[in-house]
Amino acid sequence: MPTSGVYAASLTPLHADGSIDTDAWAAHVRWLLDHGCTGVVLFGTTGEANSFSVEERAAALEALLNEGLPAKHLVVGTGCAAVPGTIALTRHALDHGVADVLMLPPFYYKDVSDEGLFQAFEQVIQGAGDERLRIILYHFPRMSGVPLSLSLIARLTEAYPSIVAGVKDSTGNWAHTWQLCSRFPDAQIFAGTEALLRNVLEAGGAGCISATVNVTSPLAGRVFDRWPEDDAHTLQQELTAIRHTIAAYPTIPALKQIMAWHHDDPDWLHLRPPLTSLSITEAKTLRNALADIELPLGASA
Amino acid sequence: MPTSGVYAASLTPLHADGSIDTDAWAAHVRWLLDHGCTGVVLFGTTGEANSFSVEERAAALEALLNEGLPAKHLVVGTGCAAVPGTIALTRHALDHGVADVLMLPPFYYKDVSDEGLFQAFEQVIQGAGDERLRIILYHFPRMSGVPLSLSLIARLTEAYPSIVAGVKDSTGNWAHTWQLCSRFPDAQIFAGTEALLRNVLEAGGAGCISATVNVTSPLAGRVFDRWPEDDAHTLQQELTAIRHTIAAYPTIPALKQIMAWHHDDPDWLHLRPPLTSLSITEAKTLRNALADIELPLGASA
Repeated sequence: MPTSGVYAASLTPLHADGSIDTDAWAAHVRWLLDHGCTGVVLFGTTGEANSFSVEERAAALEALLNEGLPAKHLVVGTGCAAVPGTIALTRHALDHGVADVLMLPPFYYKDVSDEGLFQAFEQVIQGAGDERLRIILYHFPRMSGVPLSLSLIARLTEAYPSIVAGVKDSTGNWAHTWQLCSRFPDAQIFAGTEALLRNVLEAGGAGCISATVNVTSPLAGRVFDRWPEDDAHTLQQELTAIRHTIAAYPTIPALKQIMAWHHDDPDWLHLRPPLTSLSITEAKTLRNALADIELPLGASA
Repeated sequence: MPTSGVYAASLTPLHADGSIDTDAWAAHVRWLLDHGCTGVVLFGTTGEANSFSVEERAAALEALLNEGLPAKHLVVGTGCAAVPGTIALTRHALDHGVADVLMLPPFYYKDVSDEGLFQAFEQVIQGAGDERLRIILYHFPRMSGVPLSLSLIARLTEAYPSIVAGVKDSTGNWAHTWQLCSRFPDAQIFAGTEALLRNVLEAGGAGCISATVNVTSPLAGRVFDRWPEDDAHTLQQELTAIRHTIAAYPTIPALKQIMAWHHDDPDWLHLRPPLTSLSITEAKTLRNALADIELPLGASA
């Protein structure tokens, strides 16, 4: 099973030509693992996963592993629009020692049945053909357009109890995350935001996998380490305030903007279309909004 | 420019293992071209495009061309979630003599800006690097989750007037299709349903690209040939009735069910997940609904 804790859904740093800067990425992932993160998700939504080809995604994972990042602390997003891509990336991750994957459903066709989604996940599990595989189902209906119903999750966890390990709930809706924790006590339930970190842990969930953990990981890690303690409430409030301040902006561009400021490196601003950088006005108001907040990033690189 | 007329968004026949049956597909496309279709779109939504890998899509196009299908009457859907896939498939089509492509925007990220979508299409146009390219922009917000605004279409047609040739409007909303015809008189506007065929032609549009043309093409072709004539109104009414009868069901499974009945070949029922066949009840009610309608399919194969 993936380890409980705080996971960053890592940003993917790019060169000016849009190719992946694996050196900058490896440094960022290492910093996250050294500063509060239990693990790091590569190629989640925040990592612009679905703006890269299957081949680019596979090559980048190999590059990160070659730079010495520990496979057991990585989770790879492998869910593509088409099942063959999901199978290819899942097999590739397993072949390179990464057994924990975050998996979107096939996301082009909408209003599809639980049966159709079950078949899709089953094809991936059978296509991967590896008992080490641990899948965190990725529920993000606002982005994917394809919700994972409670009955689908139940069917998958019953059919593949050792493989379907958990759910990432990116709705931001605490009632829904709570429901997942209650109904699936043997699964690992991750909130999609560190603003719900204590809530999800108190409900028996596993932790969070979050975009903003790219810049909040030291603080999020402290909340995770101390969550039942008296002072954790204050730490959580501080963490929640940072999260909500950033999430008021287009989150991925805002996070890349913060990284560019922090490292004084404009290369961090690059995004693949259809994503675009913050406007000058947005960047200014974000900078002002952050002026009164101490980001837990420490000294710049 | 793609020729005005009636286009089927072709079904993709599959073997039991989910691989593409290119023999059955070539026969179906040839039948469509011989029975009312000006051209045929391969790998549109109806063709389950986004359930196949880039490699499967490229190989299938080559197989169809090797079976002698005429490249100039084919349109290939090339829009993937990730721009690199769209570039690869667009280049591949051009390299094989197919210059007309139907192009979805990158469709994972939602609420993206016109600027971001413009950059994505521009990267594809520049990545394809071929002045023969003719793009029909594919507006299908209910499925893609990514609408193409009028201002984005204006910007693209102004920047690339010889390449951005038209729009397929799959909203089914006549007010919107009319608006496209009015605002972009130099572009080729295709309705996503043959129920609007006469309307779109009267408004100066180019025709239709439709799923149900897989089974209505002889009649749709007659409406196109005779649309200004007195009897075209009655033909259009007949065509519209068939369209609406079928579209009351999940359209792709319903069309595959009709093909399976027509050819007395259950292999036509195969779909890739997340799509699933009609339920027994749905199939029965569809069969009853079609009992009073003469489908213009002619004698079965």
